[in-house]
Amino acid sequence: MHRTRVRVVEDALDANNTIARANREDFDRDSVTVVNLMSAPGAGKTSLLERAVGGIDGPRVGVLEGDVQGSSDADRIASLHVPVTQINTDPGFGGECHLDANMVRSAIPALPLGEIDLLVIENVGNLVCPAEFRVGEDVRVMVSAVTEGEDKPLKYPLMFRTCELVLINKIDLLPHLDFDLDRFLHNLDAVNPRAERILVSARTGEGVDGWRDWLARLPDRARSLA
Amino acid sequence: MHRTRVRVVEDALDANNTIARANREDFDRDSVTVVNLMSAPGAGKTSLLERAVGGIDGPRVGVLEGDVQGSSDADRIASLHVPVTQINTDPGFGGECHLDANMVRSAIPALPLGEIDLLVIENVGNLVCPAEFRVGEDVRVMVSAVTEGEDKPLKYPLMFRTCELVLINKIDLLPHLDFDLDRFLHNLDAVNPRAERILVSARTGEGVDGWRDWLARLPDRARSLA
Repeated sequence: MHRTRVRVVEDALDANNTIARANREDFDRDSVTVVNLMSAPGAGKTSLLERAVGGIDGPRVGVLEGDVQGSSDADRIASLHVPVTQINTDPGFGGECHLDANMVRSAIPALPLGEIDLLVIENVGNLVCPAEFRVGEDVRVMVSAVTEGEDKPLKYPLMFRTCELVLINKIDLLPHLDFDLDRFLHNLDAVNPRAERILVSARTGEGVDGWRDWLARLPDRARSLA
Repeated sequence: MHRTRVRVVEDALDANNTIARANREDFDRDSVTVVNLMSAPGAGKTSLLERAVGGIDGPRVGVLEGDVQGSSDADRIASLHVPVTQINTDPGFGGECHLDANMVRSAIPALPLGEIDLLVIENVGNLVCPAEFRVGEDVRVMVSAVTEGEDKPLKYPLMFRTCELVLINKIDLLPHLDFDLDRFLHNLDAVNPRAERILVSARTGEGVDGWRDWLARLPDRARSLA
């Protein structure tokens, strides 16, 4: 029973990877660099995206919003006059806990790939499953809020291990928390020493310039690595 | 393809419910009331559990800790001299994102059911999948931290809808946030008007007496409802 289940899961992940490669080819054909943006619920993905794409210098940005239900995040991004497409995962069953390559594939016809250089896919808020499903992205960025505690890299290692950049958000709250930043960075080093990290506050704007610049330079960097 | 997938998922949920009922019968046989405690990563489940079971008046409490990896939470609870059992979900594949009835079933032989009145099962930090899998519990409690924003009941409706009690945690940070408590409660009412709610701060201890009392009275209340 257990072995059957593992095989079903492995088959599903293989199928997902095949579709993710097809997505990646579609994105490459239009020279669109793709970011898979992930975090726990309420860590600040949408706020940090609003901060970065409003006034970004260089690439033309599009956004794909994944949510179980609703379009409040997409509405926030659309108000910045950025092309945004919404995927709701709830037709799955009680609500899929992640985007998979097939959901993103189904959204590709609605994406203006010829008119953008950079696509940010905002995943469902979850630190487990999204890490297991490639969707055709070039890089993975995650947001970890200091309010979530220092132990998160150790408790959700796959998510932290799989990211090129960790945005450490809500640093305006550090004076009011027992959060030990050195211990968090030590835990992050233990699972992913090569991850870049930027300290930010979506609320006050501290550090947001660094995140916006990182994103603005990404298409050129991705091209030079390709 | 999609229809096949939905049927596989429905079959899996049916199988889970059958095992959950068997768990419930085992718990009932020993008159153990069971709480399924859920939240997003870092919302404060373990801290609120430490606060409640240390010095609880009445029921003898046991804890079952679910985590993708590690036993840091179980170690924290064990230091309070409460019987605690750890389930790690990572043998699944990249790490299961929830406890299911079968994982809990596999832990039952290790639980001292004859020596406790109340079992708290701390689920994996996740606002989506745990809501879909009954594990044999009598009641569901979730923690929602004010740092996560007011929109969470609307974005993760199944989780909020399925709980008898919502612990609204980290209220010590309210002066430093833009969080609108009335709007959060309005959103909670929209998906689950009958949910009880207690404002708490695991950090300062504010409101923790109310949560501890709720938990202490639970076995009697569950018996009167049975």
